[in-house]
Amino acid sequence: MNIKLGKNAYGKRAVNLSKIIRHADHHEFRQISVSSALEGDFETAHTMGDNSKILATDTQKNTVYILAREHFNKGIEDFGLYLSNFFLSNNPQVSKVNIGIEEHLYARMAFDGTVHPHAYVSSGNEKHTTTIVQDKDSVTITAGIKDLLILKTTDSAFTGYIQEPYTILKETTDRILATKCEATWTYNSVNIDFTAIFEQIRNTLLKTFAFHKSLSVQQTLYAMGEAVLQVYPEVEEISLVMPNKHHIPYNMEPFGLDNTNEIFIATDEPFGYITGTVVREQDSV
Amino acid sequence: MNIKLGKNAYGKRAVNLSKIIRHADHHEFRQISVSSALEGDFETAHTMGDNSKILATDTQKNTVYILAREHFNKGIEDFGLYLSNFFLSNNPQVSKVNIGIEEHLYARMAFDGTVHPHAYVSSGNEKHTTTIVQDKDSVTITAGIKDLLILKTTDSAFTGYIQEPYTILKETTDRILATKCEATWTYNSVNIDFTAIFEQIRNTLLKTFAFHKSLSVQQTLYAMGEAVLQVYPEVEEISLVMPNKHHIPYNMEPFGLDNTNEIFIATDEPFGYITGTVVREQDSV
Amino acid sequence: MNIKLGKNAYGKRAVNLSKIIRHADHHEFRQISVSSALEGDFETAHTMGDNSKILATDTQKNTVYILAREHFNKGIEDFGLYLSNFFLSNNPQVSKVNIGIEEHLYARMAFDGTVHPHAYVSSGNEKHTTTIVQDKDSVTITAGIKDLLILKTTDSAFTGYIQEPYTILKETTDRILATKCEATWTYNSVNIDFTAIFEQIRNTLLKTFAFHKSLSVQQTLYAMGEAVLQVYPEVEEISLVMPNKHHIPYNMEPFGLDNTNEIFIATDEPFGYITGTVVREQDSV
Amino acid sequence: MNIKLGKNAYGKRAVNLSKIIRHADHHEFRQISVSSALEGDFETAHTMGDNSKILATDTQKNTVYILAREHFNKGIEDFGLYLSNFFLSNNPQVSKVNIGIEEHLYARMAFDGTVHPHAYVSSGNEKHTTTIVQDKDSVTITAGIKDLLILKTTDSAFTGYIQEPYTILKETTDRILATKCEATWTYNSVNIDFTAIFEQIRNTLLKTFAFHKSLSVQQTLYAMGEAVLQVYPEVEEISLVMPNKHHIPYNMEPFGLDNTNEIFIATDEPFGYITGTVVREQDSV
Repeated sequence: MNIKLGKNAYGKRAVNLSKIIRHADHHEFRQISVSSALEGDFETAHTMGDNSKILATDTQKNTVYILAREHFNKGIEDFGLYLSNFFLSNNPQVSKVNIGIEEHLYARMAFDGTVHPHAYVSSGNEKHTTTIVQDKDSVTITAGIKDLLILKTTDSAFTGYIQEPYTILKETTDRILATKCEATWTYNSVNIDFTAIFEQIRNTLLKTFAFHKSLSVQQTLYAMGEAVLQVYPEVEEISLVMPNKHHIPYNMEPFGLDNTNEIFIATDEPFGYITGTVVREQDSV
Repeated sequence: MNIKLGKNAYGKRAVNLSKIIRHADHHEFRQISVSSALEGDFETAHTMGDNSKILATDTQKNTVYILAREHFNKGIEDFGLYLSNFFLSNNPQVSKVNIGIEEHLYARMAFDGTVHPHAYVSSGNEKHTTTIVQDKDSVTITAGIKDLLILKTTDSAFTGYIQEPYTILKETTDRILATKCEATWTYNSVNIDFTAIFEQIRNTLLKTFAFHKSLSVQQTLYAMGEAVLQVYPEVEEISLVMPNKHHIPYNMEPFGLDNTNEIFIATDEPFGYITGTVVREQDSV
Repeated sequence: MNIKLGKNAYGKRAVNLSKIIRHADHHEFRQISVSSALEGDFETAHTMGDNSKILATDTQKNTVYILAREHFNKGIEDFGLYLSNFFLSNNPQVSKVNIGIEEHLYARMAFDGTVHPHAYVSSGNEKHTTTIVQDKDSVTITAGIKDLLILKTTDSAFTGYIQEPYTILKETTDRILATKCEATWTYNSVNIDFTAIFEQIRNTLLKTFAFHKSLSVQQTLYAMGEAVLQVYPEVEEISLVMPNKHHIPYNMEPFGLDNTNEIFIATDEPFGYITGTVVREQDSV
Repeated sequence: MNIKLGKNAYGKRAVNLSKIIRHADHHEFRQISVSSALEGDFETAHTMGDNSKILATDTQKNTVYILAREHFNKGIEDFGLYLSNFFLSNNPQVSKVNIGIEEHLYARMAFDGTVHPHAYVSSGNEKHTTTIVQDKDSVTITAGIKDLLILKTTDSAFTGYIQEPYTILKETTDRILATKCEATWTYNSVNIDFTAIFEQIRNTLLKTFAFHKSLSVQQTLYAMGEAVLQVYPEVEEISLVMPNKHHIPYNMEPFGLDNTNEIFIATDEPFGYITGTVVREQDSV
C-alpha cells in the first residue's frame, strides 16, 4: 500500500498593508490584510525537497505590496482579482489561486458637520472580506462581512422546541437576540461595482435583522439570506454564521425580587452556533 | 526578621452585565463589565484563613447585578459611585473600595434617516471607562476612553532626534500617525453630568489629534491633554497612553521602483509606547 | 427562480467542562471544550419558525454535562462517540451529528521525583482534539493536535526556489524552522485505544520533525505525515497545517557588524502557511 | 492656573527577539520580548516638539538587538541590567530607565531518554519575567512568573464568610482551586545567580500551593509568599496575583440526579481577583 501526497496548498497570510490614496481634497486611507494560497504541481517539493517550482511565500508577500501601488484603488474584490490573475498567469505550475482579503474599516472624523480631510477613527472590529478562487477555467468571487456584532432587545422569541428529559430552558416570547454575524456571498459576475453593492447588501442584512419578528435564530438567518437573494440578482448564494451570544436574564428570585427582564448576564461561552446557506433553486446542493 | 502581609485587595472582575431600559418610544441597551476590589481588615483572612470578615466575591457579583436594576440608569460613573458607597457603608471592615466599569458602546441602527427603536450595532472596540476609588474620607472619580484607534495620514513629522551609532531611522516630515489611545482623566467634583461631558471631552481629544501639526507623538499627546484641561475646569488632570502603531513605508527600491509614500507595512509589534500626564500647576507631582 | 435553504447546521460551542475522576491514590483532572452540531430536517424551522423539531442548544449543552458523569472516563474520542450516538439515536429528525472536543492538557506536579496526587500545572496551549462525524450509515473519527509550537535551530534550509523580479529572499542552508503545528488524522476503526495511540502518534510527529534534514516546510510536513502513515495502520490519512513562524536574522550590517546568524527578529505576521494531506494510495483524491 | 507636564515616559514595547547560543553539543534557544521606557528631561519634547533629547524608540529597539549578541547569555535579569545601565550611562538626559523582559519558555525535545541537540517544544503560556528600574542612585530588580496556570482538585475549602442578603454562595469544604498565577518578587542584591534561584523559587511556589490545606485563596496566596521569604533571604518582598478561575459544580438536581462533585462548568468570567504582597517587617508599608 503506497503513501502519497493528497490535497495541499501554501502561501502567505497576514500580509498587512495600508495605503494612502491622495485625492485633491482629502486622503483616502485603506488598511487590508491579504492572504495568498497556491495549488499546483508541488508533489516533488513535498517528496524530494525540490523547490524549483516554488514561488517563495516571501515573494508572494512582495507581490502584494508592489501591485497594491498601481492596482489597489477600488474594492478589495477588484484587487483580489488582479492578484489571482497575476499569480495564475505568471506561474504555469500553479493550477489554482486563492486570495483572501480582509479590510479594516475606518471612518473619517467629522467635527461640526464637516468631514476632516485626513483624520480617521476605526469603525471597529467589523471587516469587509473577500475570497477569490481562480483556476484555469473559472473564478469564484465571494464577498462578506466578518465580526458584525448586532443585537435587538425585543421582537425575538424562542418557543415550541422539543421537551425531553434534559430540557430545562424556559420558553420566552421576549428575549435579547445578539450575534456576531459572519456573512459571505458569491457573485455571479465580475462586472459589478463591488464597493457599492457591498454597502447595499450590508444594509439589507441589517434592516432584515432589525425588523424581523424572530421566532428563532434559524428563522432570522434564513430571512436575512432570502432578502439578499431577492433584492440582488448578482448574488448567487449567501451563507450566514450567527453565533447566539446569550444574554441570560439574571435570576432575582433568590433575593426575594421579581424577574422583570431588565438585567442580564452577558456571556461569551458557551454559545449557540447557527449556520445556514440560502441558495437559488437551480443551485441547490 | 518577621514576615507579614503588605498591600492587598480582593474582589470580582469581569462581571458582565447588560440592561434594557424601556423608554416610551425606544429601548436603551447598555452593556458593561464591572470589577470590584476591597481593601481593609483582612490580615487574619490571609494568615489564619479566618473568613469572618470576607464579603465573598460571589456576593460582590450578585450585588452588582441586583443594584443595577434600580441604580444603573445614567452614566457608568454614577453607577460606580453608587456601588462604592454601598460596599463601603455596609462593610465596616472595608477601608477602601475600587470599582472599575467598562462600557461597551452600541449605536442604534438607522435606515433612511430613521433610528430603529430597538436594534443595535456595536460601535467597535472603543470603550468608555470609569474607576471609582473611595475610602472613608474621600472619593476619586476617573473616567476615560480605552482602545480608541485613531490615525492621520499627514501633518505628522519626526525629525531632529538624537543621532548616535545605533540610530538608522530616517527623518520624515510626512508620516502616518496611528495610535490605539487610552485616555483617563480625574474629575474634581461628583456633581457633573458625566455622560454629557464625556462626549465633549472625547470630541476635544479627537479634534486636537486631527488638527495638530505633529512634531512627535509626545507633542500631540501633550496638546491633547492640554486642550482638555483648558476647556474643562471639571477635569483635574489627564493621562494619555499613545502606543505608536507604526505604518512603515514599504521599500520599493529593491524592485527598481521609487518610494512614493503610498504603500505601508501595517505593524502591530514592536510599537512605540508613549505615556504622559498633563496636570494643573498646583497639582504638579 | 425560487430561493431555498441549502446546507445548514446548528448546535452549541464552547461547552467548557471539567471533571475529577477520583482514583484510589490520586485524582485525575480533565478539562475539555465540547461543540455539537446537528443537521437534519430543519427546513421549516428556517422558513416558518417551526421549532417542533429543534433540540435546543441549551439542551445539547445539558446533555454534554450530564453524560460526562457516566461516560467521560477514557479518551475524548470515546466520549465524542458516545455523544454522537446519543444525539443521533434519540433524534429521528437528525441526519448527521458533528461532535468536536478539545482537551486542555495538564500535568501532575512532581517534587523530588514524587508525583503529587491532586495538584496540576497546565501543559500549555497545546490541545488534544477530536471530531466525530456520524450519520445513519457511517462514522468518521478524527483526532489531532492543535497549537503544537515546535522549532529547530538548524537542519533547515531553503534554496533553489524561483527567482523572478519580485524575489529578494536570500537562500539559506541554515535557518530556524518554527511552526505552530496543527495535525488531524482519521482512524479506520472504532476499536482503538485512542489515548495510547495519540501519544505514540504525537511522538512520531515530534521525532520526525526533530531529525528531518529539512529542505522546505513542505518537505518536512510530508515527512511527518508519511511517518505516521507508515507506522500506524490505524490511520487512514493525515492533514498537517504548518504555519511558518519566521525568525528573521537581524541585519547587523547597518551598524558595521557582521551577521553571525545568532540574533533574530521573532515575528508573528506575516507568516507562511503550508498545508498538506498525506494519504494512502487507494484514498487518493 | 497653569497647565504643565506631569509624569511621563516613552520607549519601545514588544521587541521580540530570539537567539541561538551554539554550545559544543547542543543549541540553546532563547526567545524574549523586551520593553524599554525612559524618563528624564523631556518637557520641551512635549511642549515644543523639540526632539533634540529624544532617543528614538527605533534606536532603542536596535540597541536591544545589537546588545543581545554579546550580552544576552545568561538570565534575562542580567541582560535587563546591562540594557538599563547602557541606556542610563549613554544618555545624560535620562533620569530613569525601566526595562521589562518576558522570556518564552521552551524545552528541548527528548526521545527514549535522550535530549535532542536542537529541537524544541514550547513550554506553554507560562513566562519568566523581569523588570529592572534604574536611576542615577539605585536599581531595583524584580523577577517573576506570568500566566502560571495551576490547580488542585481538593484540599481547598471556603466557609465562614459573611452571610448577608445578597449572599447565596454555598459553603464548601472540597472545591477545585485553580488560578492563573502571576508572581513578582524583588531581589536585594545584583550578585545573584538569577537563573538558578528562579527555578528554586518557582518550585517553592508550586510546592506550597500543592500541599497547602487551603481555607481561601487569600490564605494560600499568603502561604506561598511567606514560604518564599522564609527560604530565600535574597528576596525582599513578593507580590502575588491569583485570579480565581472558578470551576462551578454542574447542578444535576433539575435532572433528578444527585450532585457528586465530579462535573464542573469551567469558567473564564467572571473571576475572583485576589492580590497580595508579603513583606519583611522592616519593609512594611
